[in-house]
Amino acid sequence: MATHPAKGGASGYVEADPRPANPFLMTPSPETAETLLATLRDRLGEKHVLTAAEDVAPALVESRGLYRGTALAVVRPGSTEEVAATVRACAEAGVPIVAQGGNTGLVGGGVPYGGIVLSLARLDRVRAVNPGDAAITVEAGVILADVQAAADAAGMLFPLSYAAEGSARIGGNLATNAGGTAVLAYGNARDLVLGLEVVLADGRIWNGLKALRKNNAGYDLKHLFIGSEGTLGIITAAVLKLFPKPVSRSVGFVGLASFRSAVELFSRMSRAADRDLTAFEVIPRFGLDIVLKHAPDMIRPLHGGHAAYALVELSSTRPGADTAAELETLLAGAIEDGLVQDATIGASEAQNAALWALRERLPETQKAEGGSIKHDVSVPLSRLADFVEHATEACEAAMPGLRVCAFGHAGDGNIHFNLSQPVGMDKAAFLGEWGRFNRIVHDIVMELDGSIAAEHGIGLIKRDELALYGDPVGLDLMRRLKTALDPRDLMNPGKIVALGDDPPAALPV
Amino acid sequence: MATHPAKGGASGYVEADPRPANPFLMTPSPETAETLLATLRDRLGEKHVLTAAEDVAPALVESRGLYRGTALAVVRPGSTEEVAATVRACAEAGVPIVAQGGNTGLVGGGVPYGGIVLSLARLDRVRAVNPGDAAITVEAGVILADVQAAADAAGMLFPLSYAAEGSARIGGNLATNAGGTAVLAYGNARDLVLGLEVVLADGRIWNGLKALRKNNAGYDLKHLFIGSEGTLGIITAAVLKLFPKPVSRSVGFVGLASFRSAVELFSRMSRAADRDLTAFEVIPRFGLDIVLKHAPDMIRPLHGGHAAYALVELSSTRPGADTAAELETLLAGAIEDGLVQDATIGASEAQNAALWALRERLPETQKAEGGSIKHDVSVPLSRLADFVEHATEACEAAMPGLRVCAFGHAGDGNIHFNLSQPVGMDKAAFLGEWGRFNRIVHDIVMELDGSIAAEHGIGLIKRDELALYGDPVGLDLMRRLKTALDPRDLMNPGKIVALGDDPPAALPV
Repeated sequence: MATHPAKGGASGYVEADPRPANPFLMTPSPETAETLLATLRDRLGEKHVLTAAEDVAPALVESRGLYRGTALAVVRPGSTEEVAATVRACAEAGVPIVAQGGNTGLVGGGVPYGGIVLSLARLDRVRAVNPGDAAITVEAGVILADVQAAADAAGMLFPLSYAAEGSARIGGNLATNAGGTAVLAYGNARDLVLGLEVVLADGRIWNGLKALRKNNAGYDLKHLFIGSEGTLGIITAAVLKLFPKPVSRSVGFVGLASFRSAVELFSRMSRAADRDLTAFEVIPRFGLDIVLKHAPDMIRPLHGGHAAYALVELSSTRPGADTAAELETLLAGAIEDGLVQDATIGASEAQNAALWALRERLPETQKAEGGSIKHDVSVPLSRLADFVEHATEACEAAMPGLRVCAFGHAGDGNIHFNLSQPVGMDKAAFLGEWGRFNRIVHDIVMELDGSIAAEHGIGLIKRDELALYGDPVGLDLMRRLKTALDPRDLMNPGKIVALGDDPPAALPV
Repeated sequence: MATHPAKGGASGYVEADPRPANPFLMTPSPETAETLLATLRDRLGEKHVLTAAEDVAPALVESRGLYRGTALAVVRPGSTEEVAATVRACAEAGVPIVAQGGNTGLVGGGVPYGGIVLSLARLDRVRAVNPGDAAITVEAGVILADVQAAADAAGMLFPLSYAAEGSARIGGNLATNAGGTAVLAYGNARDLVLGLEVVLADGRIWNGLKALRKNNAGYDLKHLFIGSEGTLGIITAAVLKLFPKPVSRSVGFVGLASFRSAVELFSRMSRAADRDLTAFEVIPRFGLDIVLKHAPDMIRPLHGGHAAYALVELSSTRPGADTAAELETLLAGAIEDGLVQDATIGASEAQNAALWALRERLPETQKAEGGSIKHDVSVPLSRLADFVEHATEACEAAMPGLRVCAFGHAGDGNIHFNLSQPVGMDKAAFLGEWGRFNRIVHDIVMELDGSIAAEHGIGLIKRDELALYGDPVGLDLMRRLKTALDPRDLMNPGKIVALGDDPPAALPV
């Protein structure tokens, strides 16, 4: 390949720095591209190196249509060794790589700007299920729902769960440290990992596939890769924790006078039910209204309207546990004390599922209300009601007619603070205000010691926000880690933190 | 300070590498040392820069007397800013720093070879207790028992607990990712951390003190410092998770026919009691015998002897929970099925404490039996009985009369595989065999996909073992991380992984 001028330090160009200038915009010469593709075809087989426009197109966009990338090819290695060979070939050619699982991410983290899209879809084997170790070993391309199913077939629970579980792949879940609806009881994706296998930027394979509950043999490398969005290496397999399956589960749907009351209910229930409280989600009146409006198969769970709703779940693995009775007692007490206005409890698994559907269908029905500007944020639990009140007031003041839809994982301090456009406003004009609302919402988040990225990650969409709000020393550490593990900036370059030559985050759709 | 020749790459000396040759053995010139000490006295006050031999001596040795280091001084900064100033001054002088909390570590990780010992003991403030966030913010020098007490005073539980909790300090617990007796239900020290404050090798302060349950704002930096034994930076404060206090607790002491039966009992109890099973410890007959022999205030818990004993604890936060009844049912079933030979259940908190003492006093009473060669290892739960059987057989064959004492956190797959010397053998001669037994035990650990360092860490004592058994790619990653965060190798140099110029791990006592 051609020699590229490269930046050395802050002040000038030197030849010594191995990192090519602007890897995004670096279009490899036709010869380099053809040599790379020939190498990959030779190694992976013709049919796993896709270059036809219609084959590549789905890998260029993310789920909200906010970005459209470009790529030389989508390659589909079939094993860890083939992933390693692909990475090595790209490293030799100086061509960037973006790893993709189910491409369900919400922050543009999987969008390629040039280079190769490496699909993990063919690494789809469950390598081992071991109930004796309460562990399952899966390849990165296994669909999340299939991990759950494999655990279930072995009489165990893999708790990670969220709306996209039918198409999201576990490697992506780990690369983004996915959250979801079971975090309250079981933790984030990171907390479910015992071991990892990772292909590094130079194509070497780190084998950290241990099924151990305790392992202090040096620095904890797995936590570095989990949540790094493919910028430090490519996760190819993982050993995950399994749990006993609950024998009793009850779901309640609760009407409350305010978001603040919902937070108070959470505090009360988490003290009383502790480890049995396995979900606590909040939905505002506007959220339930649009679900019932746009998803006609949904049934209104409570008579009358309430300012806020909570979906609460108790579950237990104790033989003989009666979570329905436990939930009824808790909610009856809360009604008696005037904290809860009304509540219903699912009388069957079908009813439980119907109540959950009211929560799960919310994001999709919000689309039917026009443009939405989204913020996935977290604050300490004690500041959660303050956050929602202040941010709602500030956003409504900034744009009359705006409809705030603050919903989500209240028990984790994580709110999807989404803004639906005023009725009748031009969608593009509304979305053009995203930056202004970022400033309003994220300023409040930071005042309350929160995070501007709770569970969806940084990717492209929040890269510049992180640069603005992140602790400068922390950001410098991140850049040092990136440079130490990927000195040529070829692993999903420009995501999370921008290095000197990375292009702007906001590229045209 | 003088210019030091420095190694560049594997093959020769160049001036460009900023890392001084052999920082351990680098005795700073008297001028450099005096300038540094003057700077530190000026910044911290005379009385917090200790150079008198009797003041420095306690910081030079570790608890087992396996190593004796040297140091210019013990300095006692009183705040994060003073820690930062100390690190900056040392960085300017090119003098290495070892951070110490309670100096209770078991792997020589806190032993200084030259340079400065930075004591965190004066950073002993509980900065905030917030039950609403289920969080507590503490400085690194708070004694673990005081963290527990502060949580308790707020009506909450901080679960990290182990024998040295009365003198160990929380910063050291986090720097070593301490384990202990509550890991089964609450996780390792790492799992209890929400946020960290760290002084970096260049004296800058990273403020990551967030009390958030979800935070995907870039790479997870806290997990990099937790367990890094002070080699990447110095933890100065942390936000830790609190939990509801159990309202019911029951402790059982169980006699079994074999270690294998104990593992089977764990499997059975963890399925049945799940999150209520908060401890499962195993003690061999030899272990109980020596506790009863050397700790005369201890009372034999069961009539007759058994090959193996398990200490089991159920606890629950559910109002009205009756863990005693639950435990009785479980153990009665296990006796009926022939799995358990005999069992007793504590009838009061005093009796529970007495049963726990049988386990907690074991390490100290082992000292009375002469030299012991210790291995803190873990394997997958399904291989635990195989490990203990194979390793016992191999060690007994290697040295007739050797007394195996394999005890500990069986529910975590973590065994302290300790070897007491044959009766009458010379202690020093026995300890001289440590390397031979490392090979025997660690070979079996690795065959069973385990870890040679479960909860005590690597420090000096296992540094060369890690180099021998660790995944070479993983080791290279660790060295890269070390070099990226501490390019001059001044933060606790030579611990965990050795860089090119670091001296041998086995230095004379």
